[in-house]
Amino acid sequence: MSTAKRVGELNPPERILMGPGPSNVHWRVYRALSTPVIGHLDPNFLSIMDEISEMLRALFKTQNRLTIPMSGTGSLGMETCFVNVVEPGDEVVIGVNGVFGERMCDVASRCGAEVIRVEAPWGRKIEPDIAIEAVKEHPRAKVMAVVHAETSTGVMQPLREIGEYLSGTETLFLVDAVTSLAGIDLRVDEWRIDLCYSATQKCLSVPPGLAPVTLSEKAVRMLGVRKSKVQSWYLDLNMIGRYWGKERVYHHTAPISMLFGLREALRVIFDEGLERRFARHLEAGDYLKEGLLGLGWGLFAEEGARLPMLTAATVPAGFDDAGIRGRLLGDYGIEVGAGLGATKGKIWRIGLMGETARRHNVDALLSALRELRD
Amino acid sequence: MSTAKRVGELNPPERILMGPGPSNVHWRVYRALSTPVIGHLDPNFLSIMDEISEMLRALFKTQNRLTIPMSGTGSLGMETCFVNVVEPGDEVVIGVNGVFGERMCDVASRCGAEVIRVEAPWGRKIEPDIAIEAVKEHPRAKVMAVVHAETSTGVMQPLREIGEYLSGTETLFLVDAVTSLAGIDLRVDEWRIDLCYSATQKCLSVPPGLAPVTLSEKAVRMLGVRKSKVQSWYLDLNMIGRYWGKERVYHHTAPISMLFGLREALRVIFDEGLERRFARHLEAGDYLKEGLLGLGWGLFAEEGARLPMLTAATVPAGFDDAGIRGRLLGDYGIEVGAGLGATKGKIWRIGLMGETARRHNVDALLSALRELRD
Repeated sequence: MSTAKRVGELNPPERILMGPGPSNVHWRVYRALSTPVIGHLDPNFLSIMDEISEMLRALFKTQNRLTIPMSGTGSLGMETCFVNVVEPGDEVVIGVNGVFGERMCDVASRCGAEVIRVEAPWGRKIEPDIAIEAVKEHPRAKVMAVVHAETSTGVMQPLREIGEYLSGTETLFLVDAVTSLAGIDLRVDEWRIDLCYSATQKCLSVPPGLAPVTLSEKAVRMLGVRKSKVQSWYLDLNMIGRYWGKERVYHHTAPISMLFGLREALRVIFDEGLERRFARHLEAGDYLKEGLLGLGWGLFAEEGARLPMLTAATVPAGFDDAGIRGRLLGDYGIEVGAGLGATKGKIWRIGLMGETARRHNVDALLSALRELRD
Repeated sequence: MSTAKRVGELNPPERILMGPGPSNVHWRVYRALSTPVIGHLDPNFLSIMDEISEMLRALFKTQNRLTIPMSGTGSLGMETCFVNVVEPGDEVVIGVNGVFGERMCDVASRCGAEVIRVEAPWGRKIEPDIAIEAVKEHPRAKVMAVVHAETSTGVMQPLREIGEYLSGTETLFLVDAVTSLAGIDLRVDEWRIDLCYSATQKCLSVPPGLAPVTLSEKAVRMLGVRKSKVQSWYLDLNMIGRYWGKERVYHHTAPISMLFGLREALRVIFDEGLERRFARHLEAGDYLKEGLLGLGWGLFAEEGARLPMLTAATVPAGFDDAGIRGRLLGDYGIEVGAGLGATKGKIWRIGLMGETARRHNVDALLSALRELRD
């Protein structure tokens, strides 16, 4: 008790969040977060849920009825998509060209899946024809999964061609849109994506804690014909869908305040407009890449497949990776991300997501890097 | 897009939250929720994590190193405790005297457990000697689980005797403290509890979204000797423990703002003091029960096992359950909970949790009930 009493006032430093998420948050979202709570079965809250689903559909560009925010962070969104459709023994084809493709393999195998990996080197996209070839070799595959925006490498994955092929098969198209949603174009219906998950702390600019997901009718049919119960009670969409749907059957207590925040963030997004928002991300990303090249940095992701909101930049020779990152955070209040796995010490991952994706933040970073180099 | 643009300003009505959670939230917690976000690997955030764990240990009355808030609501806490220690084929003994005991059976069976139910009628506690007898009959049981505060019935479950017996066995003692933590005494170490989970939206008076859990060394040893991987990647404490422990290995992005809120709520709790807080809950609960009896209501839970923070009250004969609850919410801004399952229409579940547990809220409810009766 005495130790607990020693804990002082909450007083975190101000940060420009240019890592791979969380991103900076709009003041209107903070205001929503501190709006007094109402109950999760209050008729007023049920309307708010409907509004959130409706705006998420517009954001995902889908008509999918089952379009909801799951009560956890992005990785919970990933687990939701796998655990609801994969049963022990199912074949699952996964594109692996970074950390999050690897994570999908781990999650799928914990569902009892036979994982078939389609690999590309880190920094390169999965060639669509190779992905399609792998499904042709495994025509009974339940799922083909790829990462739209690989946060570990800055690579953008083309989706349309894979989706078009899969739409003529029994295989479901599963897409990780954690870092892409609300930052670059994503067309769930047009690209024939069956399961898609995201997270709030990237281009939606809500604090971490929610994972929007959407499931096509093809995916929803799979839920209905499962032989076994979904192994996770908390993530069972057969039950959660009845709370978000017309029946309003209580499942778990919804994270009210975070949902207030998400609702406001979606309003902020549609006030700006999707096209303008995508253009802002692209412009900020290009401006950053240009500036980094001018300072002797390289770009890790292959040309033509570089994300605007997450730039993986190779550090110049002789550069003190951890030391400079520490000074950038401590002296300038700027957070950037380190490389993961084999890229540790070799790249930085610089995020320009949601509210952070602004020219003045790029200027602040580049100016600090110039000072720190001198 | 056009539909999304029609969504107006967030403007929920003010509520006195006297249902089974969420409870009303202290203004300091709202202020913390709207504090600007910092990164989940920021050294300042790592200190905040340590402070939260330290305060949670004081609240759970434990020295357990692995004492952390999980990134989801209370039911995710439940799933965390089962999924990390139960492997397919394990025997699990579960006390069932309400909805949440039933839910534990469902969760455990999805982990592949052989569930042995120890039942008591709704409204009665599980007699400790009967629980102990069941474990004696199943000496290889991996877990014996009970609900400390059964939110569906208002029953308080005695724990000490069961914990003392189990401490001399290989069986782990698992306790649901979702509704009890921070409202009545809970002594994890003294009562020999091995796995305990709670939720933030009850007596901690934080909005829903986090699930504090604590594991004894006996439980942590079980994590280490598992034959199979934990079936949930998101809930795998072997990995999450490395983020909350010294190594600080990234697992998933922590829900920063909710953790800010929890930290402040814990400070509010220790500013008040646990004993005073428990006394406040008891006093408010007794005052409510007395008032309800005076209005012709009954008490559903057996005498001697009634919770202070959740009163299950049987509605008077001829009472219009749904109609009056609707008017109470719409005209008075007071939320109470309906009965679940077989008690639907027969009982109300009236919460006095955390900030809500105050005499003036009871007065408001009783006065409204008098008006609505006339």
